[in-house]
Amino acid sequence: MSQSFEEQLRRLAEVTVRVGVGLQPGQKLFINANLEARPLTRRVVEEAYKAGSRLVVTQFYDEQLSLARYRYAPRDSFEEYATFMVEARLKALDEGYAWLSILADDPEILQGQDPELIRQASQTAARYSKPFSDRISGFATNWCIIGAASPRWAQMVFPDEPPQRQMELLWEAIFKVNRVDQTDPLAAWQAHLDGLERRVQQLNAKRYAALHFRGPGTDLRVGLADGHLWAGGAGRAQNGARCVPNLPTEEVFTTPHRERVEGWVQSTKPLSLHGHLLEGLRMRFEQGQVVEAHAERGQEILHHLLQTDEGARRLGEVALVPHSSPIAQSGLLFYEALYDENAASHLALGASYDECLQNGHHLTPEQKRAAGANHSLIHIDWMIGSEQVDVDGITPSGGVEPLMRRGEWVD
Amino acid sequence: MSQSFEEQLRRLAEVTVRVGVGLQPGQKLFINANLEARPLTRRVVEEAYKAGSRLVVTQFYDEQLSLARYRYAPRDSFEEYATFMVEARLKALDEGYAWLSILADDPEILQGQDPELIRQASQTAARYSKPFSDRISGFATNWCIIGAASPRWAQMVFPDEPPQRQMELLWEAIFKVNRVDQTDPLAAWQAHLDGLERRVQQLNAKRYAALHFRGPGTDLRVGLADGHLWAGGAGRAQNGARCVPNLPTEEVFTTPHRERVEGWVQSTKPLSLHGHLLEGLRMRFEQGQVVEAHAERGQEILHHLLQTDEGARRLGEVALVPHSSPIAQSGLLFYEALYDENAASHLALGASYDECLQNGHHLTPEQKRAAGANHSLIHIDWMIGSEQVDVDGITPSGGVEPLMRRGEWVD
Repeated sequence: MSQSFEEQLRRLAEVTVRVGVGLQPGQKLFINANLEARPLTRRVVEEAYKAGSRLVVTQFYDEQLSLARYRYAPRDSFEEYATFMVEARLKALDEGYAWLSILADDPEILQGQDPELIRQASQTAARYSKPFSDRISGFATNWCIIGAASPRWAQMVFPDEPPQRQMELLWEAIFKVNRVDQTDPLAAWQAHLDGLERRVQQLNAKRYAALHFRGPGTDLRVGLADGHLWAGGAGRAQNGARCVPNLPTEEVFTTPHRERVEGWVQSTKPLSLHGHLLEGLRMRFEQGQVVEAHAERGQEILHHLLQTDEGARRLGEVALVPHSSPIAQSGLLFYEALYDENAASHLALGASYDECLQNGHHLTPEQKRAAGANHSLIHIDWMIGSEQVDVDGITPSGGVEPLMRRGEWVD
Repeated sequence: MSQSFEEQLRRLAEVTVRVGVGLQPGQKLFINANLEARPLTRRVVEEAYKAGSRLVVTQFYDEQLSLARYRYAPRDSFEEYATFMVEARLKALDEGYAWLSILADDPEILQGQDPELIRQASQTAARYSKPFSDRISGFATNWCIIGAASPRWAQMVFPDEPPQRQMELLWEAIFKVNRVDQTDPLAAWQAHLDGLERRVQQLNAKRYAALHFRGPGTDLRVGLADGHLWAGGAGRAQNGARCVPNLPTEEVFTTPHRERVEGWVQSTKPLSLHGHLLEGLRMRFEQGQVVEAHAERGQEILHHLLQTDEGARRLGEVALVPHSSPIAQSGLLFYEALYDENAASHLALGASYDECLQNGHHLTPEQKRAAGANHSLIHIDWMIGSEQVDVDGITPSGGVEPLMRRGEWVD
């Protein structure tokens, strides 16, 4: 590497503030960060102030303290929740703060803990924080999620390397897929976002009725919601700011129809969910609903997840990612959806996004449901794409157009 | 040491939860912790859950992020404040949470930063957080402040030792003055608190009109408030819980009369204030008010402090600590008021405590003022005692009773 680690970390912070968050002049910023991400968080705070932010408020969370709860807290206390912290975040939105999450999570932090307690705690958190997460996913402000290397995460990604080298390699990968190793990262991001925007416009012009996925263990027809919109790359927040909600991002995505998904689908990567690894997922859909679900690993967590609510058994997102994406090309498995979902086409169980529906921010819940949108406490991405998967677009008249072949865009 | 470091850390956490916070069965706990105090914080959370807490909410603060603000934020933004975080803490009190602060601060973190910006930021913080700090000092819940070793703090205390050894020595000192090196720390604390309680009762029976301090550079008469009460050791919160607000604690303290302080007084230890060291303080009082103030180091910070409000130039606390206290006997200078104020008699500029006034929690502000209590945004302790300082109690009739000689209790 020609640049020092410190300089690349600063550049990642700069890309985060300018491209990801899209911080506006003088805008305040609320950061929620894994305590393991302290070095990157500090750089981000510096770059935010340099960009003119009038106040940066940072809340660190410590997964070790969550683990202590599972180990020692009273067994009947896992539906307790500090609602005043959600209220504080809602007030930050009211006051015009931008929002940034910095992940550095241990993909297996809760391995071995009681799945029923995990279900209680995660459903409680999802329920109480929904007013906030709805406003974030509805672009009430400009927002972004990024990742920082941490020892346990690095160990998962590079298990055969010595610890110090694991961290170096994970940082190198993070820098590369976030384009901060390039000469002008801001220009590289602009070009990439323009490309995603063109793809979004092409797909929106098609008005496909459905997508058809075919590959090993997969033969799935995903009907699209009436008035579905494709999105990807940058988004426009209600305050007019342009932000990129996930860094890195390689996907274009839209809203499936909650009642029009049929067939078998098989996962192509593991996912970390509530501190557990889930691998080898297979599901069968009928009329949009999961009617069979298996996991080679994490069956009980998957089972609890699907029982969260009625919408947890239906899809809220379908996303296309080419196998030529830098993350797929790295050949790495990150065990972190923020990264892995940008290496492969994927589905999400649970809530759909208003931005992926025409006029979505202004429809009533009934109107959204009628269009095929899905409602749930959860939104869980899982990867179904690979270089062995083909995707067709099905036109309203039933015509079949090849979209992806062997995981790559046809055009 | 016969016990492992890990076991002593666990014992300190246990003393914190059981003696300091006095956590009640099932009670929730809010922790505000310096991120450098992560290892002790984790132990405290574990001990709190083991003691039956139904939820522990932890907020970490990072002094490096404060420093980033001073370095890079717009110069006109230092009166911005995240009031929603204070509101969240107030709601935690409403919901019956106990409160714990874990310090590990760098005594010189803001050295070299603009004193005017420090004034703006610290006054803004004091003003907005006053509703919360008033409820804490008024024992709205059981609460406690403790300290944890951190590299920068250890470097200040043991400048001539290698870094690793600095941390070991500071932890050793912290364990010792918190009595966790003793065979039964909980029993040792009970005996110590009983001793402080006896001293409080003796002093309350005396009804002194004033205290008279004499030593090098000091000849100060501190009139006591009408209806003053002495306190020390454990306190009783409004929820009935018994807590020890500071660990360690060696002081007994009461309310000076805001208009009855006369003479010269000289500091006997430096203090860290707003990330700066202040040394060699000399002040002259007339009718309770500071009329001359010098500092060999930190003059500008002191000057700003005294200008906070009218009450900042008057006393809110006078405290007696014998030179035989374990902290004084350690011979160490901690540059942290939580520790140093328990090594020497001290005064505090600023607000007095309701608990140190008869019926104090129920008097109107006017009644408190009439009794001699002081009101201010600040409460800053500074040390005036040493083995060279004598203290007399002045009876209502003008009689002189020796209380301390050469820094030690007479009886």
